[in-house]
Amino acid sequence: MEERLYHGAAYYPELWDETIIDEDIELMKQAGISVVRMGEFAWSQMEPEEGKIDLTFFGEIVDKLYKNGISTIFCTPTPTPPIWITHNHPERMFVNRQGERMSHGARQQICTNNPDFIAYSDRITEAIAKKFADHPAVVAWQLDNEFKCHVAECYCETCLSLWHEWLREKYETIENLNAKWGTGVWSETYQSFDQIPQPKKTPYAHNAALDTNYRLFSYDKIAQFAARQAAIIRRYSKAPITHNGHTDFQVDNEKLFAPLDFTSFDDYPNCDDWNKMIYDYDYFRNVKQDGKFYVMETSSGHNGSILGYEHIHRKDYLRAEAAAAYAGGAMGFNYWLWRQQRSGVEQNHGHLLSSWGKPSIGWDEVLKVEEMRKKFEPIFLKTKVKKAELAQTYSATARAFFFTEPLERIDYNREQVRLHKILIDAGLAREIISDNADLSGYKMMITAYLPAIEKTFLRNVLAWCEAGGTWVVGPLTGFRTPDQSVPYDYALGIIELVMGFETRYFYPVKDSGAAATYSGITAELTGLGAAFEEKDVKVLARYEGGRTPDLPVIIEKPYGKGRIVVIGAIPKGEAGEQLLLKLYGDCARDAGIAMPYSPSQGIIFYEREGEDGEYLFVCDMQGQGGKIILPGLYEEVETGTRLSGPAAVGAYECLLFRKIK
Amino acid sequence: MEERLYHGAAYYPELWDETIIDEDIELMKQAGISVVRMGEFAWSQMEPEEGKIDLTFFGEIVDKLYKNGISTIFCTPTPTPPIWITHNHPERMFVNRQGERMSHGARQQICTNNPDFIAYSDRITEAIAKKFADHPAVVAWQLDNEFKCHVAECYCETCLSLWHEWLREKYETIENLNAKWGTGVWSETYQSFDQIPQPKKTPYAHNAALDTNYRLFSYDKIAQFAARQAAIIRRYSKAPITHNGHTDFQVDNEKLFAPLDFTSFDDYPNCDDWNKMIYDYDYFRNVKQDGKFYVMETSSGHNGSILGYEHIHRKDYLRAEAAAAYAGGAMGFNYWLWRQQRSGVEQNHGHLLSSWGKPSIGWDEVLKVEEMRKKFEPIFLKTKVKKAELAQTYSATARAFFFTEPLERIDYNREQVRLHKILIDAGLAREIISDNADLSGYKMMITAYLPAIEKTFLRNVLAWCEAGGTWVVGPLTGFRTPDQSVPYDYALGIIELVMGFETRYFYPVKDSGAAATYSGITAELTGLGAAFEEKDVKVLARYEGGRTPDLPVIIEKPYGKGRIVVIGAIPKGEAGEQLLLKLYGDCARDAGIAMPYSPSQGIIFYEREGEDGEYLFVCDMQGQGGKIILPGLYEEVETGTRLSGPAAVGAYECLLFRKIK
Amino acid sequence: MEERLYHGAAYYPELWDETIIDEDIELMKQAGISVVRMGEFAWSQMEPEEGKIDLTFFGEIVDKLYKNGISTIFCTPTPTPPIWITHNHPERMFVNRQGERMSHGARQQICTNNPDFIAYSDRITEAIAKKFADHPAVVAWQLDNEFKCHVAECYCETCLSLWHEWLREKYETIENLNAKWGTGVWSETYQSFDQIPQPKKTPYAHNAALDTNYRLFSYDKIAQFAARQAAIIRRYSKAPITHNGHTDFQVDNEKLFAPLDFTSFDDYPNCDDWNKMIYDYDYFRNVKQDGKFYVMETSSGHNGSILGYEHIHRKDYLRAEAAAAYAGGAMGFNYWLWRQQRSGVEQNHGHLLSSWGKPSIGWDEVLKVEEMRKKFEPIFLKTKVKKAELAQTYSATARAFFFTEPLERIDYNREQVRLHKILIDAGLAREIISDNADLSGYKMMITAYLPAIEKTFLRNVLAWCEAGGTWVVGPLTGFRTPDQSVPYDYALGIIELVMGFETRYFYPVKDSGAAATYSGITAELTGLGAAFEEKDVKVLARYEGGRTPDLPVIIEKPYGKGRIVVIGAIPKGEAGEQLLLKLYGDCARDAGIAMPYSPSQGIIFYEREGEDGEYLFVCDMQGQGGKIILPGLYEEVETGTRLSGPAAVGAYECLLFRKIK
Repeated sequence: MEERLYHGAAYYPELWDETIIDEDIELMKQAGISVVRMGEFAWSQMEPEEGKIDLTFFGEIVDKLYKNGISTIFCTPTPTPPIWITHNHPERMFVNRQGERMSHGARQQICTNNPDFIAYSDRITEAIAKKFADHPAVVAWQLDNEFKCHVAECYCETCLSLWHEWLREKYETIENLNAKWGTGVWSETYQSFDQIPQPKKTPYAHNAALDTNYRLFSYDKIAQFAARQAAIIRRYSKAPITHNGHTDFQVDNEKLFAPLDFTSFDDYPNCDDWNKMIYDYDYFRNVKQDGKFYVMETSSGHNGSILGYEHIHRKDYLRAEAAAAYAGGAMGFNYWLWRQQRSGVEQNHGHLLSSWGKPSIGWDEVLKVEEMRKKFEPIFLKTKVKKAELAQTYSATARAFFFTEPLERIDYNREQVRLHKILIDAGLAREIISDNADLSGYKMMITAYLPAIEKTFLRNVLAWCEAGGTWVVGPLTGFRTPDQSVPYDYALGIIELVMGFETRYFYPVKDSGAAATYSGITAELTGLGAAFEEKDVKVLARYEGGRTPDLPVIIEKPYGKGRIVVIGAIPKGEAGEQLLLKLYGDCARDAGIAMPYSPSQGIIFYEREGEDGEYLFVCDMQGQGGKIILPGLYEEVETGTRLSGPAAVGAYECLLFRKIK
Repeated sequence: MEERLYHGAAYYPELWDETIIDEDIELMKQAGISVVRMGEFAWSQMEPEEGKIDLTFFGEIVDKLYKNGISTIFCTPTPTPPIWITHNHPERMFVNRQGERMSHGARQQICTNNPDFIAYSDRITEAIAKKFADHPAVVAWQLDNEFKCHVAECYCETCLSLWHEWLREKYETIENLNAKWGTGVWSETYQSFDQIPQPKKTPYAHNAALDTNYRLFSYDKIAQFAARQAAIIRRYSKAPITHNGHTDFQVDNEKLFAPLDFTSFDDYPNCDDWNKMIYDYDYFRNVKQDGKFYVMETSSGHNGSILGYEHIHRKDYLRAEAAAAYAGGAMGFNYWLWRQQRSGVEQNHGHLLSSWGKPSIGWDEVLKVEEMRKKFEPIFLKTKVKKAELAQTYSATARAFFFTEPLERIDYNREQVRLHKILIDAGLAREIISDNADLSGYKMMITAYLPAIEKTFLRNVLAWCEAGGTWVVGPLTGFRTPDQSVPYDYALGIIELVMGFETRYFYPVKDSGAAATYSGITAELTGLGAAFEEKDVKVLARYEGGRTPDLPVIIEKPYGKGRIVVIGAIPKGEAGEQLLLKLYGDCARDAGIAMPYSPSQGIIFYEREGEDGEYLFVCDMQGQGGKIILPGLYEEVETGTRLSGPAAVGAYECLLFRKIK
Repeated sequence: MEERLYHGAAYYPELWDETIIDEDIELMKQAGISVVRMGEFAWSQMEPEEGKIDLTFFGEIVDKLYKNGISTIFCTPTPTPPIWITHNHPERMFVNRQGERMSHGARQQICTNNPDFIAYSDRITEAIAKKFADHPAVVAWQLDNEFKCHVAECYCETCLSLWHEWLREKYETIENLNAKWGTGVWSETYQSFDQIPQPKKTPYAHNAALDTNYRLFSYDKIAQFAARQAAIIRRYSKAPITHNGHTDFQVDNEKLFAPLDFTSFDDYPNCDDWNKMIYDYDYFRNVKQDGKFYVMETSSGHNGSILGYEHIHRKDYLRAEAAAAYAGGAMGFNYWLWRQQRSGVEQNHGHLLSSWGKPSIGWDEVLKVEEMRKKFEPIFLKTKVKKAELAQTYSATARAFFFTEPLERIDYNREQVRLHKILIDAGLAREIISDNADLSGYKMMITAYLPAIEKTFLRNVLAWCEAGGTWVVGPLTGFRTPDQSVPYDYALGIIELVMGFETRYFYPVKDSGAAATYSGITAELTGLGAAFEEKDVKVLARYEGGRTPDLPVIIEKPYGKGRIVVIGAIPKGEAGEQLLLKLYGDCARDAGIAMPYSPSQGIIFYEREGEDGEYLFVCDMQGQGGKIILPGLYEEVETGTRLSGPAAVGAYECLLFRKIK
């Protein structure tokens, strides 16, 4: 892809009379649209009958756009198989956990592990790859679209065999599987791999390891499907390959994107949930550890379908959202969708143009985005996001564990977003990284809700702590083995041993009347909680009330040149967020992380750096404005004004400061 | 049917020892019961074994009742097929959207499109029709009972074939269907009609047109089933034919009743929801555009079954409910049921007699109804309901659209009832008419929640406006094509063009902070909202706050001698109701509709007219009494008192005034 | 079983490395564990392949424990069939009402009526019975575990045939069944038994008798399964046989325990719901009318699984719970479980030892229990619970009726627990007895929510009333026949006739504005309510407001030397509880029941008696302490202090007083 900040939209020329293409292009130019994403739902147009593939139409559109300065991200159309693939083929259809076999309609109605489907997918993928192999307009490829957005694990017959195969590879012998899963409980012991069921309906819960492994199996299989499409494309094209992912889909993004070239995603929070977008930026920037991502879809105003809609963004919000994306590492920012769907399901989704080509309510907002983009592009292309010194651990496997074992209805992603928001509020720059990520450069890492700590991760962390890192661990971390059983020797598993602290009790603290006070802030505690021994540890907070009064709940220990802080239970509600904000801030300060900007609530920032110097991007996401402290002399890029100390930020205002000294 | 006001009850002599019949008849006379409805659940009594039909029992009952002055409305017994039809015949059973095939039990467990079932239905229908062909006691026929009250569309294999046939007839070519439905979206394009699925389980929503058409298909098929039974009966009998319908069942009442002779219905709102009964009267009076209907079932006190019950009516309410029915066009008023069910499912439903023949808590209320009925009958038989000058549009198709596309969980019927209640509160006489109805005589029409405006309807409306009609359109009207897609050229479709206004934006106004003020009343706005251009329109209200401040939301335009008022968004909550009440009132006044009575809240009225003069029926439905203004000199019929101006109405009091001058 | 107070725990040695057994035994001794319950989930360990049964391991464990003074309650392992029974045998699996066939996993996934399964069950049961036939360590047998805890009635094909057989036995002819069930309603009449469906999915509710009978059929079948296992064991062993039951499972405990030797149960209310444990004690003590029971499972702290957990008991609560059990008739008090599950589903359940053998948060509580147990044992072994003079009727059949006909979402068990709690609060000692129980010794009986009064029960009650008993009947009693239809002649059936009162109206009082005042306490009324005739009755309370103002709602009549009090409607909410508390108290006083102790809220007591004299056990269950009145001179057993009149009870304190005079 070219070095530019793309501004784009999803485009469905196959749904419209060809006569409107020229009109569309003219309007795209007006709106500053430099790229379209195309083709992901067009299989029946490309191959209306089995084997009769004709890509002429798309070739012409791509050419025409290119002549008008508009590039294309082309997609494989596999999320929506044509009727000739599914009709009279129930065995190819997706089956959900309740045993319901999907009918034709909507999307993802097919099992992506079905061998017939895979053959069809291979053929259309190859045809497209060939067609646009060397086309300069096609600046990138998108595989399929939103894998597993509507569905989770498939329970069809094909998947049953593949499941057995996957288990055999993972566990090698049935005895090993029985031991690891602890199948002795409830006489669930298996005699051979082919007896192991998919976790379908039973009178009560399945063995935790069975349930979680089936999710992991599904994550692996969809990643394999993506890798297979990518491999086909690479035979013909050098353009980079991505997928349009999401944090909430039923995939392991790290695995999924590993064989691809860059990350892209879509998300549609309404403007009140702006921090979810920042979360996405901070997460997808790190999935491939390259500091980049692409916002492949978001709305110019509101998410919606025939089934309902979100409320519309407030005026000027979109500009801030897009500016933060570019500032946070986005190579591009695309809308879904250009022209309102006339039919189907998504007629009520925000769009740039109405079905009849009239600027929608989002149009003026898009023009503001383009104005901003043009202003920032020169500087953003010369700089990169400065990697934060604080990391937050994310694990798709941990999320799978919590689906199986939700305890107090814990939603893994919601909890991670909550912690991330606390970091924003604390004015802490941060990266969300996987437990496989390289830790170099980080001064502090927050690892919470990670039931099983993999050995390689622990080894990395220990080395990093030894060298000076501050690890803030917990709550709900380390209390399970990789097969979701209870560790053999310690409540919080191996970390107790290596870190040298001890848990006296591990029990449900929920509604027991327990609280904790840190630095004057008292919060109720909840979750499965660890009450620690007061032995060789510095106590940062103790249980107050409840069943284990006075026992330590937040402790600290030095480790090599670094240290470890262990949070034993979940600080609840807003008070809990205040407590964590204070604790994280103190830990960061002690770890030597600078927190100079003290942004008001709702103000976010990204530091960027490059040959050209250091920059500070600041914007208000909440619509109320506020201020930020400039810790030195800065020049506001647009106006050239120099200032230091407190700087006002207007409602949804986006500012770029160059650091002078 | 005779010219009388029937007062009746549902009767199940087949469930009781014959010895109680005489006791029943004696008590019916005491209660003033002049007609019974019989036979609808008695198939297994009539045809205990396949083909062995014996109607002797019912013949004797009908005779005995007739000798005692009690007529019969006889039913076909098809809602409850005997076990010998369903046992070992899964292929005949109803299948719901979730794919669950019904078991024997309850009612409507069979598919009414199943050819075997239709043959059985034909045979029993013919046998009954023959039996009572010329019987003077049988004053009317009821087909089946409450079609589609427990079930909606069937998803069995028979229905799949019929669906393909129905689509082929409607769309002729698959290309036409693909175009109309916009199946290009998500590659759902069909190659032939036989590939089109029933809208069963998919990962997400089906194409809107597929989903809605399946409902319309089902409406057509059940209407055909009714027509088939009616045709058989007509071969033998001249007595008029009806069905016991409802506004909330999964049918198109207009289609269903078209081949029948009069409308009848049941409903069971508790006394707090009295306006739902008035709604029914105003609706069913117009389904056949004949000003008549029959209340085939309601409770003497409360609705109930083994699964629960409504709270019981307050004392004296029943009389008001019945009086309003007769005054509003009812030919009869029947209770469900005469004698409490001893077994089955409905043991806890209100009744006139307990299982052991003792007057129930409703008995005295029924006596009050009969007293009222006798008092009003002479005048009601000489007069007819005076047709109101205000119409409210109702469309079963629109309702189907909202099932598919509920937006903000819009319940079409609940919204129509809400608007109707506003009209009651405004003291406006009204008719609820279909979009196929003749508009002559109306001065104003309210058309809301009608996504697709059919051409013939628009043509009628335009001619009527041209001639002076006031059309109050919206919210949520005109924004879809008849195939539930987005119109080609305008947000609100063709009405923009022909009426000469223009929508600038059409977007979800929900929770955007938008409000509107009309005549001093401010209400929050919600729904998909239109913000209009201020071009050649008179602005009645503007958006305040939100995303489109100052743009018009309620506009007015002259059209020929008439005018059009367009409401762009939903005024929300009670304030919204106040706003609409004011707006509707002003529009009515400007349209030349007299609103002389100014009834207190809870007081309703019907004007009646005939050779004998003009009458005003007034009653209190809410139990708190109030007053009404008599705009001239009137004589209270019962007492002969003459009065004008304010007249008091007691709690649940029913009054009939003759207009003197 | 020996004459001692057992203190035990569930033990799963099969899940652990044999090396920990010695460690476990040592810790059991420390905790005072004298018995373990073993084997119930160990089928796959005992018979890892079909027919290869090896019980050596369990033999050795039992021996080793015995050598250390620890007895065993051994179980049949049938709740968790091994994979070789279920794999590839869908026809053996349990099918729920929704038609979902269970997959392998969890527990109770098989149909206990399946003949193959029964054969496997017979064989393993016989092998175990033989193995431990004369073993002195095995002090009792437990059949299976928690029958029907996760599942209710099975809807498989086997059950369909057995259902037909069961019906044929019960009703003899199809005509009789049709008459009793009133199948004429909705043409559901059957021609033969084999046509009668299982009550699977229909468009609406099934015939009430069909639905309820299917539940009763299921209750019978599971009791037969238990009896079959018991008979096999008895061929080899003289040790007493029990089952681990529960009040909330889908069984008829009276039938289930009839062929067994003693009752045992598990329950896991958190400490706030302590009265549920007392309810269990008062119920299970009477199921076999022997004044004994065994608490087979409860938690040392909290109930939990991977799906969630209850909040943990407050400190010291466990001792009170256990003391009340022993005082109320418990032969033993066992925890679930000894050592935390490492895997499976129940990792988060309270335990005595963690997976790695460390005392858990419950450990110290268990030590307190043991201390208490040792203190009370000598006296409790010399005395028995003194049977209360007040009985509360419980009927599993009535519960089945309310599943079918819940009216206002009535949960039968919740209502019985509510009434029982009122009795506790009133300071009334009570027994919960079935409608088959011997009434001798009781002065008063409360019978509520018993829709159908069986003839034998009524005959017993009448004789008992005649001789002086006070029967407090209602609400919702007598209004159905044994086939859940409406009685032939009276609203409340035969009791009206024999007791000589009359119901004028029986109707839903819910939300009708009706209240009643008794002894100055006014409560809203709800439920299906009876309004009585004021004829030969003493009126204790009348309807106020509503539809039947001034009619009697609580009446009294003498009967022989006794009397009957009839409560016509449900007194609602807390005021209703106050009203009933007053009414029950007055009735008890009039019936000659002494109520001398006047315990504070949360204080409970049990009277015990024996050769050694009379004792009063008192404890606080609520954690706030309080007092009780000692009506005479008592000696506190532990301290020897003598006192009379008010005696303080500390938070969760357990006191035992010997009566001096």
